[in-house]
Amino acid sequence: MLRSCAARPRTLSALRAARGGAPRPARDPGPARRSFSTEKVIHKDHSLPNPSWSKDLRLLFDQFMKKCEDGSWKHLPSSECKVPQRIHSFKTYFLDSKPVKEDQLSQARPFTRSYEVGQGFEYAMFYNEDEKRTVCLFQGGPYLEGPPGFLHGGALATMIDTTLGVCTISCMGLFMTANLNINFKSPIPLCSVVVISSQLDKVEGRKVFVSCNVRSVDEKTLHSDATGLFIKLDPEKSLT
Amino acid sequence: MLRSCAARPRTLSALRAARGGAPRPARDPGPARRSFSTEKVIHKDHSLPNPSWSKDLRLLFDQFMKKCEDGSWKHLPSSECKVPQRIHSFKTYFLDSKPVKEDQLSQARPFTRSYEVGQGFEYAMFYNEDEKRTVCLFQGGPYLEGPPGFLHGGALATMIDTTLGVCTISCMGLFMTANLNINFKSPIPLCSVVVISSQLDKVEGRKVFVSCNVRSVDEKTLHSDATGLFIKLDPEKSLT
Repeated sequence: MLRSCAARPRTLSALRAARGGAPRPARDPGPARRSFSTEKVIHKDHSLPNPSWSKDLRLLFDQFMKKCEDGSWKHLPSSECKVPQRIHSFKTYFLDSKPVKEDQLSQARPFTRSYEVGQGFEYAMFYNEDEKRTVCLFQGGPYLEGPPGFLHGGALATMIDTTLGVCTISCMGLFMTANLNINFKSPIPLCSVVVISSQLDKVEGRKVFVSCNVRSVDEKTLHSDATGLFIKLDPEKSLT
Repeated sequence: MLRSCAARPRTLSALRAARGGAPRPARDPGPARRSFSTEKVIHKDHSLPNPSWSKDLRLLFDQFMKKCEDGSWKHLPSSECKVPQRIHSFKTYFLDSKPVKEDQLSQARPFTRSYEVGQGFEYAMFYNEDEKRTVCLFQGGPYLEGPPGFLHGGALATMIDTTLGVCTISCMGLFMTANLNINFKSPIPLCSVVVISSQLDKVEGRKVFVSCNVRSVDEKTLHSDATGLFIKLDPEKSLT
């Protein structure tokens, strides 16, 4: 089952985020820890501070961890255990799609955790269940360059998609991005930290409407705002 | 000057695409070739076939190279030479942005060419000047996984942004993405090839409106469609 191991992956994007810490050599995830009492393998959480994190990112992370103390906010770990059936389970929703070769699948890595520490996507997510809000603290590394000295718009779109996906966590079932509408207002300097604040706006049948804004740490600069539409997957219905 | 070396980088996204071949150890770009007559350094073109390309991608590439023979289509090389002033030049458009540290900038890599060969974004672009169209042949590698066995929506958004940016090449000046509106209709199997076909729809003052669709190689599956708004940069005017 797709969401049998990761923390609260009720949406595909949540699954993506939760899957972020897949064990792989490049990122040196450290050894998996086996709990002999339950025979469950516990992997390292990649959404915890590492040496590449800037002072800004560490401070923000500490602030949100403090908010978690009264239970209003929850830190969403970025870890995964391999679920052998996960690909098969997901493919039942897209039976007509071309099969991916086994040797290619064995090399697969979750996009947002596919770089070595500090080079690409460094982020941590927090969720407020009462307010249906998710916050992503994001530091885009030097390998995500778009315009000279600035973050690539596609790298920001990737984190917006991921954050909005996690935001749909409050709805049951398996969801997938159907639409992203992103306004880019001010470019993000490479290696700086931004805060992506998202919220669930509306649920209409299979549709979940979410939105977010992307601000600088001092909140003075609005870098971007976006809306997302997520559709609950149904093998008998299309996404559109 | 931002576009002094790369091929036709009249837009930032075109610049991104053109900058794709930045020399860096991980991708093994091969030695730069110096032309002594002009003192211009010519770097390897990373939009040419390599061993990671599938049969589908090679066949499509050959078809488009054939279309180039009569001059109607042009292959857009993905190569770059370092321009010392490029960052300074670009920053004049965003004087209020936080400066990026020199040691971080020295590690910067263009996002779409930041992976080793075959792991991430493998693509080639072709441009038809008369029809104001750009086609991107794209193979998303195993490190770009989103939903299990499928391409991450953010990776597709990245290539859509890049292709639409290149499509604005027909307009003079320095452009930047202001809006992307993407419909995700059918997920793309990891490691498969898709064709992103874009066209310039309208120019209104500083605004350029472009659109694209993303189809499977056999054209039977519409994976996505999108629109983009690009704004000509002006140091005295905001993007919105």
